[in-house]
Amino acid sequence: GKSKLWDLMKSHDSVAIIIHHIERRSLLFVRQFRPAVYFNRVYAGGEQEVPPVGTAIDGDPRLGLTVELCAGIVDKEKPLAEIAAEEVQEECGFNVSASDLERVSTFRTGVGTTGSMQTIFYAKVTEAMRLSKGGGNPAEGEYIETVEVPISQLYDFILDESIPKPTGCAFGVSWFLKEKLRPSFVE
Amino acid sequence: GKSKLWDLMKSHDSVAIIIHHIERRSLLFVRQFRPAVYFNRVYAGGEQEVPPVGTAIDGDPRLGLTVELCAGIVDKEKPLAEIAAEEVQEECGFNVSASDLERVSTFRTGVGTTGSMQTIFYAKVTEAMRLSKGGGNPAEGEYIETVEVPISQLYDFILDESIPKPTGCAFGVSWFLKEKLRPSFVE
Repeated sequence: GKSKLWDLMKSHDSVAIIIHHIERRSLLFVRQFRPAVYFNRVYAGGEQEVPPVGTAIDGDPRLGLTVELCAGIVDKEKPLAEIAAEEVQEECGFNVSASDLERVSTFRTGVGTTGSMQTIFYAKVTEAMRLSKGGGNPAEGEYIETVEVPISQLYDFILDESIPKPTGCAFGVSWFLKEKLRPSFVE
Repeated sequence: GKSKLWDLMKSHDSVAIIIHHIERRSLLFVRQFRPAVYFNRVYAGGEQEVPPVGTAIDGDPRLGLTVELCAGIVDKEKPLAEIAAEEVQEECGFNVSASDLERVSTFRTGVGTTGSMQTIFYAKVTEAMRLSKGGGNPAEGEYIETVEVPISQLYDFILDESIPKPTGCAFGVSWFLKEKLRPSFVE
């Protein structure tokens, strides 16, 4: 063999939840500011020189907004479904029970840099389960807004390039459209 | 406002291609060793102490194998479709023209760490377009194997957790199943 040196980051595994609002016939997502996306968009194309570490960055903060599945990192010794249920409550304000979550699958994110694991769940919610308006945990510096997309607009939403979103969000929507609206697939 | 310090990595944007082999009724993917995934799986769960930078890692290298869409980083001043066409040839051995690629959409990958952009394309190939068996660029230390999945097995493939794969691969497959096999979606 040949020895190789590789740059990588250790990063937390995560959970993400496809939240289906039954009565409103919609999926719920979260909009938040992502420093890495902001940085990447401000310095995209190499037109601006990248500043030294610690420099404040001036620019339109809206460039850093993404729309994603409700998600959270796995930083506790708890079953993944419990962490997922907590995130649904914290970010979107709905009381779901871990045992009501359906596990979709697990993927690798950032295969070139972090290689961490993301497990995706599916949750159904109704207005009776609403505890708060959500919004994340301000103590952790989270400012999160819930975004609702009607089922009829989901496919246009995932292909709309003006709304920055991760591939996991696009997959979650596609899975929902296939699995929950189309009962079976035969070639 | 409040000033915040954030750890992030500058990372290249990328292209990925859903390769549809028309005659064989299959999609083509690439299997490769991913150091970050390997590292993450060997040190998952924090049971082993993470070694200092530069340490050689002993373990089963198969833990680092992923199955992904054919993909490449954007490190040249060229249209994305041209870079994508080059990757199809280099990794999978098919001669496709940039103008024959269909652009699917653009997503953000690694929203928590790199915020880079991934543009996904769709390509149709036939045996007449085959130039080589692919395998990546050995000069760049790439050792890539082509993996073929018949259309009838695609959905099971994306949900099979024993095969580590990125969410982008799962989305690409879902998009293909919906867009190329089901002509329209009406709620």
